[in-house]
Amino acid sequence: IDSKLPDVGTTIFTRMSVLAQQYGAVNLGQGFPDFDCDPLLLERMQSALLHGHNQYAPMAGVPALREEISRQIASLYGRTYDAATEITITAGATQAIHTAISILVQPGDEVILFEPAYDSYDPSIRLNGGVPVRVRLHAPDYRPDWEAVRAALSSRTRAIIINTPHNPTARLWTAQDMQTLAELIKDTNVVVISDEVYEHMIFDGARHESVARHPALAARAFVISSFGKAFHVTGWKIAYCCAPLDLMREFQKAHQFIVFCTHAPSQYALADYLPQGAHLQLASFYQRKRDLFLNAVADCGLQWLPSQGSFFVSASFAHLEKQGDWPALAFAEWLTREVGVACIPLSSFYHDGFDEKVVRFCFAKKDETLQEAASRLQRLK
Amino acid sequence: IDSKLPDVGTTIFTRMSVLAQQYGAVNLGQGFPDFDCDPLLLERMQSALLHGHNQYAPMAGVPALREEISRQIASLYGRTYDAATEITITAGATQAIHTAISILVQPGDEVILFEPAYDSYDPSIRLNGGVPVRVRLHAPDYRPDWEAVRAALSSRTRAIIINTPHNPTARLWTAQDMQTLAELIKDTNVVVISDEVYEHMIFDGARHESVARHPALAARAFVISSFGKAFHVTGWKIAYCCAPLDLMREFQKAHQFIVFCTHAPSQYALADYLPQGAHLQLASFYQRKRDLFLNAVADCGLQWLPSQGSFFVSASFAHLEKQGDWPALAFAEWLTREVGVACIPLSSFYHDGFDEKVVRFCFAKKDETLQEAASRLQRLK
Ligand SMILES: CSCCC(=O)C(=O)O
Ligand SMILES: CSCCC(=O)C(=O)O
Repeated sequence: IDSKLPDVGTTIFTRMSVLAQQYGAVNLGQGFPDFDCDPLLLERMQSALLHGHNQYAPMAGVPALREEISRQIASLYGRTYDAATEITITAGATQAIHTAISILVQPGDEVILFEPAYDSYDPSIRLNGGVPVRVRLHAPDYRPDWEAVRAALSSRTRAIIINTPHNPTARLWTAQDMQTLAELIKDTNVVVISDEVYEHMIFDGARHESVARHPALAARAFVISSFGKAFHVTGWKIAYCCAPLDLMREFQKAHQFIVFCTHAPSQYALADYLPQGAHLQLASFYQRKRDLFLNAVADCGLQWLPSQGSFFVSASFAHLEKQGDWPALAFAEWLTREVGVACIPLSSFYHDGFDEKVVRFCFAKKDETLQEAASRLQRLK
Repeated sequence: IDSKLPDVGTTIFTRMSVLAQQYGAVNLGQGFPDFDCDPLLLERMQSALLHGHNQYAPMAGVPALREEISRQIASLYGRTYDAATEITITAGATQAIHTAISILVQPGDEVILFEPAYDSYDPSIRLNGGVPVRVRLHAPDYRPDWEAVRAALSSRTRAIIINTPHNPTARLWTAQDMQTLAELIKDTNVVVISDEVYEHMIFDGARHESVARHPALAARAFVISSFGKAFHVTGWKIAYCCAPLDLMREFQKAHQFIVFCTHAPSQYALADYLPQGAHLQLASFYQRKRDLFLNAVADCGLQWLPSQGSFFVSASFAHLEKQGDWPALAFAEWLTREVGVACIPLSSFYHDGFDEKVVRFCFAKKDETLQEAASRLQRLK
């Protein structure tokens, strides 16, 4: 058949995970914890299962869970989304992003995104006949170039996808960035799709600039976050999307025909578990892991870039004598095979493979795993 | 914003379930069991949760589950799908259907479907810029009119969606129907999307004509089924899609950006549970429920149409003196409010509300529920 995504292969995450397994490498590639979730969350799940919550959830999600989300966002960011009409539970953040794009993008519409970008944005836009317009972020700072954003805006711009904490670069947007964006799109109809799945993993006392804090943006935004990341259950595929009523009404029209609803017992379990507030400790939990890892690899020969949030940290290998001019993909494969540590090349987050010789490591791993990876990385010296 | 689905509201299933709750009606509307699943399946889930299967499943699904599915299809229908490359686990059958449509349909492409049709087909086609071409089935037999199908085919036809056992009419396609379809599309590039979620609920000794039995069709088809329906866990949202490698390769390109993967612990639980073969008893299990219900409502005043498969049965109210010329939606709402039994109007399964005065009842309910509904329906006399 005629492919709508002729250039798309298996995602880099799957490919590196397969390679890691094949070579017995420590897998710091794909972003998922190698430790289990809180046993209390499993108890809540067991209790949801035994209470017969095994049939369809309501299309928008279990009401108690939507109410907890609404309360949490109000208390963290000061915006109240109506639990009945402005929040939808999705089968992962990827589905939320795809659904938002699906209802916004008509053939020929443009969507602005920042590269390096999470790999689903671009194909989701193209599956809907849209045109990705990419604004490039550069190592080592990966700061948005606002003139480039202004230049990217056109009368066909339907949406802009933003992501803070940013995957893969681990950088945060500031309140000023949000302000600048709001001013840039003030007189347009551009809708903001805000991917905030790492919202609770913010380091060194910084603050998460959720779009929900910024009324001018929130009024025209889909704000997306994930329980998989917050509670160490990436395999549960439960996330959510918040938006003002007019946007959420359209979102739900598509949602109900893309998946209809999501895993019911998981939703009941999370509704029970969310008030525990375990996610509020994620910042210190992951900051400790980041520091443990960075201390152990500080002198391994790679040049480490700052990690302000998320559970990733990147490093440049450009200065390595032997490997410095290799493509990042080749370096990542070599590191997996020969050094025994899997990572993800940042070039895979650019549509054209733009390559600044940077690779990403995930530190959402047991301390032992991080220590083992660090000791293997010493072989680079 | 500019709606891509301006005419879409909340699905009829949600609306009738909400109305049922509001009026304390027995809910025979939305298709889901009011009894729980096998406790053994819950044990398997508990064990998957405790074995740490809480991180991302592989994109195509847990290998052991795909292998069980492959074995089952081979033994039931004689076709072997390669578990490694030709089967994908999806977040419900709705997501599988949406994904197949998403990779096939370019703006302006036509997709043939039979009305009455499950309500997601049409908006999924339109979300992708496609044009639904509807072939109408008529009460009381709902037989496909092959001349109409031939007339619907054009050079823009990209796919045809078929569904047996059929929701909402509870009719089966015969081997001859499959043969006729295969001949009709022989010299075209039309892809078949076969929704077989009720495959195990076949009554009176009939045989399920899976597309997987018909090599000429299977070679160009997505075959979709559901564990939610088979194991009384509609809320788990786990289904699957099988197709030859060239089609499945494209399907997975979209799948990985629509949801990436699906609920991991449920997949491990189902992989363990599937070999028990519980689904092979569904035919007699639901035939007994159908007969129990039909015996109890035989003389209630509605005209019952045959149910050959699925867990639905429909009835005409056209001959009722007072309500006979009401729209089916009005009748269904009245029945919910005044008689205390919720059902679904078949007119909601036609894009234009075409109305032959027929409503659908779901008998996937406890015997007591069916008896209570039947006794309330006596008030119609
Ligand atoms: C959906 S697999 C990718 C996980 C992830 O978010 C990442 O590694 O960037
Ligand atoms: C996804 S809700 C609808 C359930 C169902 O398949 C039906 O009632 O037809």
